[in-house]
Amino acid sequence: MRIGLFTLAAVVLCGAATMARGEIKTETVKYKAGDVESQGFLAFDDKVAGKRPGVLIVPEWWGLNDYAKSRAKQLAELGYVALAADMYGNGQVTEDPKQAGQWAGGLKTGDRKELRIRVQAALDRLKSNPNVDADRTAAIGYCFGGTTVLELARSGAAVNAVVSFHGDLSIAQPAESGQVKAKVLVCHGADDSFEPPAQIEAFQAEMRKAHVDWEMNSYGNAVHSFTNPGADKHGIPGIAYNKEADHRSFRAMIGLFNEVFGKTHEGNPGQARK
Amino acid sequence: MRIGLFTLAAVVLCGAATMARGEIKTETVKYKAGDVESQGFLAFDDKVAGKRPGVLIVPEWWGLNDYAKSRAKQLAELGYVALAADMYGNGQVTEDPKQAGQWAGGLKTGDRKELRIRVQAALDRLKSNPNVDADRTAAIGYCFGGTTVLELARSGAAVNAVVSFHGDLSIAQPAESGQVKAKVLVCHGADDSFEPPAQIEAFQAEMRKAHVDWEMNSYGNAVHSFTNPGADKHGIPGIAYNKEADHRSFRAMIGLFNEVFGKTHEGNPGQARK
Repeated sequence: MRIGLFTLAAVVLCGAATMARGEIKTETVKYKAGDVESQGFLAFDDKVAGKRPGVLIVPEWWGLNDYAKSRAKQLAELGYVALAADMYGNGQVTEDPKQAGQWAGGLKTGDRKELRIRVQAALDRLKSNPNVDADRTAAIGYCFGGTTVLELARSGAAVNAVVSFHGDLSIAQPAESGQVKAKVLVCHGADDSFEPPAQIEAFQAEMRKAHVDWEMNSYGNAVHSFTNPGADKHGIPGIAYNKEADHRSFRAMIGLFNEVFGKTHEGNPGQARK
Repeated sequence: MRIGLFTLAAVVLCGAATMARGEIKTETVKYKAGDVESQGFLAFDDKVAGKRPGVLIVPEWWGLNDYAKSRAKQLAELGYVALAADMYGNGQVTEDPKQAGQWAGGLKTGDRKELRIRVQAALDRLKSNPNVDADRTAAIGYCFGGTTVLELARSGAAVNAVVSFHGDLSIAQPAESGQVKAKVLVCHGADDSFEPPAQIEAFQAEMRKAHVDWEMNSYGNAVHSFTNPGADKHGIPGIAYNKEADHRSFRAMIGLFNEVFGKTHEGNPGQARK
């Protein structure tokens, strides 16, 4: 297992850690999501040669803001091609909880068919990038974005891993047995008052029934939005940043990436350099 | 956070991954646990120079068997000094569930005062090893051993991290607020039928009330004893090995070790070589 650990982690991290990094390039990429004109945010290391794993990032309910973009750049620095999705179209973003609630709520109600259409379109856009190995992708999301990537997993999308950070675990269309291709990791704030225990139980029961390869990590002392350093600025009760939970959940995500990507390439997505 | 990630993981794993390894030495170490004459199993890499982090391993209810010893050797290969504890004295071990139940049950009943005495003695023995940095130690345990290391944490023992793998989370003497020094990681099989939901809730409530720095990971499709490749041989219903959960929980443990040990030394416990 020690060897497994090195295969899974060391090769990736050593490569990235010991290599001079190229410049992180960012650009707006347009794509159509159903009837919606979307403008995603792409980030990649221009010194990486050849195809590498791609990671889709679905933002919080605020839309494609600087926090989501910072995660894309962070993943690009690790050698991945990262695309932050524009779930509302035309790059719409807000800091008004009421507006955010209307946008996110509209996509989360009912059968979430439109939600699936929009996230699938973003995943397809990521896969179409010439630098991305379409067979090695993951989708991660924060809050509303976490709910969204779980919906992507339920849809049976061809994605290797899905990671939800403080996402709403409510179910619209339950996953069907054997249909979920993604390995699912749920990173949950153990003190998240927005996530009722009954909803957590229902989610875990759904994962069991559908025979999903899943893991749920509960981080002590963490509440909703624990990964976002700017969470506290909104002054919303029950929403706060937690550095330990942020770092630990990021570590767990990278561990899963290494597991699903590590065996099919050299390990470090940024290893082959020009 | 990327830098943090490298500090926490890459330095350790790169060092260990790229270095020629010395021979793993093992020896029986005697120590007194209360009135009990104990014989622990020590494993370390003889090519490592200087003090390094020490890891205490508390075996399953079977006693200090080959599985516990294999974990000690595995950790020694990663550069730690590992001591597998003899919780029953005189190196007693069994494959009879009834006998194991009597031994473990006897220590788990009541106030668990004797259990704390025995595990503290093993930790002290580990710290007294000349190769161990007594300020950088962790205690991990499997099943009964998981319960035991959680008891060690509750006692306020000076240990940086405690990791329970499929341990019984029942409470005898609840942790007192602010008294737990160890960061606590609980690795739990989501389908572990030996762990009632109410007991899990009570444990998490205890951690909250005592303001412990804790994390609980639930691994889908994993039942009791999921880390032990030999679990199935006993033919006990509800006990089985799960490779994914084994590897993922091991990865989570190493991540925590890197977090608590990584900042106070070069990162790789086996880095300084003769």
